[in-house]
Amino acid sequence: MSATVLYMSMSLDGFIAGPNERLDNPLGDGGGRLHDWSFTDRVPINGQVFKEFMATGAIVAGSGTFEPAHGWGGDHHGVPIWVLSRHEPRIDVSQWPLVTYTNDLNRAIADAKRAAGEKTVLLHGAATAQRALAAGLLDELELHIIPVLIGQGRRLFDHLAPEHIELERTRILEGEDGVTHMHYRVQR
Amino acid sequence: MSATVLYMSMSLDGFIAGPNERLDNPLGDGGGRLHDWSFTDRVPINGQVFKEFMATGAIVAGSGTFEPAHGWGGDHHGVPIWVLSRHEPRIDVSQWPLVTYTNDLNRAIADAKRAAGEKTVLLHGAATAQRALAAGLLDELELHIIPVLIGQGRRLFDHLAPEHIELERTRILEGEDGVTHMHYRVQR
Repeated sequence: MSATVLYMSMSLDGFIAGPNERLDNPLGDGGGRLHDWSFTDRVPINGQVFKEFMATGAIVAGSGTFEPAHGWGGDHHGVPIWVLSRHEPRIDVSQWPLVTYTNDLNRAIADAKRAAGEKTVLLHGAATAQRALAAGLLDELELHIIPVLIGQGRRLFDHLAPEHIELERTRILEGEDGVTHMHYRVQR
Repeated sequence: MSATVLYMSMSLDGFIAGPNERLDNPLGDGGGRLHDWSFTDRVPINGQVFKEFMATGAIVAGSGTFEPAHGWGGDHHGVPIWVLSRHEPRIDVSQWPLVTYTNDLNRAIADAKRAAGEKTVLLHGAATAQRALAAGLLDELELHIIPVLIGQGRRLFDHLAPEHIELERTRILEGEDGVTHMHYRVQR
């Protein structure tokens, strides 16, 4: 059965975007710093993680991630994309057959798993992560820890209930440029 | 010259204590989970880090850390302790010659460095970390990342300015029980 894996770049102080996120400032002020490493994908370790990310079989992302990224032009890496949203699309998705808008997380993940077959379902976005964690629908986390404190912005882990969610550490990779890729499995 | 090193156990979601911290609930609800590893100090990796922690030459800690811990009985591991506080001691420290209360961070760190000689100065506490980072007085971080999401509580990184603080990753140790010890040097 396909697993859901959250892939996120996060500063050591827990942020996935800088302050002042807007459609025209999608990563927030200075948030681009968190994604520098993905442009160094020809180096061995970061490249391996990047390849894994690009070998996933379906995507479930929040509209807060998808829309500021201009919907990746409707095609991330050729796989179907479910976009979680409480509103109508704020960008034109009518010509993008791979994209499905929904506000039904359970359904999106079930459909994505079916589409992914043997492959992994890539989850992306802070709100999506929080909803999936709360619903018990997140199987694994792959966090790319960036060696910087950015001080302010949007946190990956926020608005969670006070219940502990135990994790099993499954892999630590010391990537290039000080990026540490930390992989955990959610214990149930 | 002695370096200041922040030693903190932190959940993967960034908390160093659970919610409802009080003098009689010093780690907050469930916060003890973050310190389980330090009782496994006879295993090789966690033990090595624990020994390093106990080989530091002086301590600078916030009163919010020191007082709920009952001042470690006035003696952490035989070294002088500077306690940062904006108020008079709320516990009786009059019989503890190793303990000095002050609200002068610069002075506390300067005095601690002098006392530590060739050894490291251990910084401890979230407020102390934030003040030292803001003042440019923190040299290194050693974070013990605990494989759990605790959801709510006190964050280590909070109230920082939006300026980026770049870090150099200097060591990653995969400790026992899923604890990952991450060491960084602050770049200036």
